[in-house]
Amino acid sequence: MAPRKVTIIGSGNWGSAIARIVGNTTKNHPDVFDPVVRMWVFEEVVNGEKLSDIINTRHENVKYLPGKLIPENVVAVPDLIESCEEANILIFVIPHQFVRNVCRQLRGKVASDTQAVSLIKGLSAPNAEKSGGVKLVSDDIREILGIEVSVLMGANLAHEVANDDFCEATIGCKKKAEHGMLLKKLFNRENFRINVVEDSHTVELCGALKNVVACAAGFTDGLGYGDNTKAAVIRLGLMEITKFVEHYYPGSNLETFFESCGIADLITTCYGGRNRKVCEAFVKSGKSLEEVEKELLHGQSAQGPLTAEEVYFMTEKSGLADRFPLFTAVHRICKGEMKPHEMVCCLRSHPEHMDL
Amino acid sequence: MAPRKVTIIGSGNWGSAIARIVGNTTKNHPDVFDPVVRMWVFEEVVNGEKLSDIINTRHENVKYLPGKLIPENVVAVPDLIESCEEANILIFVIPHQFVRNVCRQLRGKVASDTQAVSLIKGLSAPNAEKSGGVKLVSDDIREILGIEVSVLMGANLAHEVANDDFCEATIGCKKKAEHGMLLKKLFNRENFRINVVEDSHTVELCGALKNVVACAAGFTDGLGYGDNTKAAVIRLGLMEITKFVEHYYPGSNLETFFESCGIADLITTCYGGRNRKVCEAFVKSGKSLEEVEKELLHGQSAQGPLTAEEVYFMTEKSGLADRFPLFTAVHRICKGEMKPHEMVCCLRSHPEHMDL
Repeated sequence: MAPRKVTIIGSGNWGSAIARIVGNTTKNHPDVFDPVVRMWVFEEVVNGEKLSDIINTRHENVKYLPGKLIPENVVAVPDLIESCEEANILIFVIPHQFVRNVCRQLRGKVASDTQAVSLIKGLSAPNAEKSGGVKLVSDDIREILGIEVSVLMGANLAHEVANDDFCEATIGCKKKAEHGMLLKKLFNRENFRINVVEDSHTVELCGALKNVVACAAGFTDGLGYGDNTKAAVIRLGLMEITKFVEHYYPGSNLETFFESCGIADLITTCYGGRNRKVCEAFVKSGKSLEEVEKELLHGQSAQGPLTAEEVYFMTEKSGLADRFPLFTAVHRICKGEMKPHEMVCCLRSHPEHMDL
Repeated sequence: MAPRKVTIIGSGNWGSAIARIVGNTTKNHPDVFDPVVRMWVFEEVVNGEKLSDIINTRHENVKYLPGKLIPENVVAVPDLIESCEEANILIFVIPHQFVRNVCRQLRGKVASDTQAVSLIKGLSAPNAEKSGGVKLVSDDIREILGIEVSVLMGANLAHEVANDDFCEATIGCKKKAEHGMLLKKLFNRENFRINVVEDSHTVELCGALKNVVACAAGFTDGLGYGDNTKAAVIRLGLMEITKFVEHYYPGSNLETFFESCGIADLITTCYGGRNRKVCEAFVKSGKSLEEVEKELLHGQSAQGPLTAEEVYFMTEKSGLADRFPLFTAVHRICKGEMKPHEMVCCLRSHPEHMDL
């Protein structure tokens, strides 16, 4: 089989960090991968120069990952269609709200045996007018392009990965032998250790639902609660994640939650992430969520409240909102329908504490 | 059946916090429990008064839990044998090194249908002369007294429980219907939510082995590693806990690790606990572990290094030390046989990352 051509769709902070990894692994496995890795760059002008030119001459993404060299075999391509021509593996690493538009441009232009892998955490962007429930980014890609889609998730802050700090990540795929092991070869490095599981939906849902739990953790921090309460909130949140996945995406494996995409990413997000931070400030300042977000995130958004809304739409419609008291409380607090301190009341009679 | 008589063996910080709970639950269930709860107090004189007299008149343990009222139906008894006379339920909440001596005094003096529940985290105190491997406190009690022993563990910092902050705990027992549900009635309160699992060994081992993982987390903090690495270390530590329990105490249930005794207690310990703190300072200061412990813990000891030694004794003897690279590295670093920064090298080729 000819070496596979790899394209990275996206060149932000996370995309550039991943380009450092993939540039190396493709070079190290020339029998498996074409060492020329194309990276689609949404063109912009930085200090009078085109970003794609800067990357191709100085091998640095000066705007989104300054100070870190990108291997020279990674070639920036500003034209989306051109960047994906004859590609065998597409790595999606763009903000979730651009996925559908990018895929529509690629429709009919990628072969049906192309493999995709999504590194995008969070859910598919909802329709503008209303909540439509949880929709996975990987399902969007699969539906529009008609190709196999795996996911890569984990406790992976981009700047730490770019620093080559030791960490782990999880690849979720349909078939380990056919798709997973090839992707492991593409991403696994000395300090970026990959596990593969045949449980793609669970891996992806962990990456989205953890943000709802992080909001709850932020509320407890904002209220000044101690370690015991925070630990209970994180644990009950994890239990709701497992139940949600079990109910709406049956066939998940309990062991997947022990992977980096599960508990490891959840812990990191509940102690360090932006959803925690915004929700803590929301409680402490008494300002609206929108104000706090604007002040703290400089234009980025916290996914947790949006995900909580999509989750609530589904659980409420199925008459199951009571079985997810933490998810429901996060949504209602974000909407101003409940005070943060009332959250713990909802957890006291949690279904997890009921004896059958 | 006559209401059960309950005795709390121990009156330190944790014992006194638990007395606040048990004093209330027994009053609320007079049909099930005798509302007079005896608490064995190791007698000492505080400002010229006997501690047991202070507790029985002012209903406050001024030495170990000042400022918190203990319900009046909890009666301090300075004589161990007298405190346990005709007791149906014994709550063990003393430092682990005193357990065997206390049990020997009680031998032959408790009825064979007495139930015990151990709240003691950590392993049975090893023989003075050498490491003897992991031995559970509950097994000590069971062997010496010949009675059924359950355990209660979880993310429960004593002072937060004493503040009535919301938290969870796990009861591990042999038979849920026979032992577990009675104990749940004894401990479950509005802000102290109990789950019962028929997996006593796992619950107890989580409470001991988490301290080894907390040492590893402390090393990463001391070395200034970021969130990704810390999350990976905690996750790999948890995987080693599950493998250790599976191998040496077969019959464990994966779901038990999702309980408060599992991930919740592990998280709290790896972010807040004393083992983490001591090991961070050990790396940063370059002092010996003993020195750091003396400076930071004021006479208390960190269980992690001792547990790591017992664990290593067992894995090494079974030729399995390589399958527990994190546990082994923690032991070797504590013994000065390995530098803290070498730990990550041991994790890169962790068995968890191998594909079968």
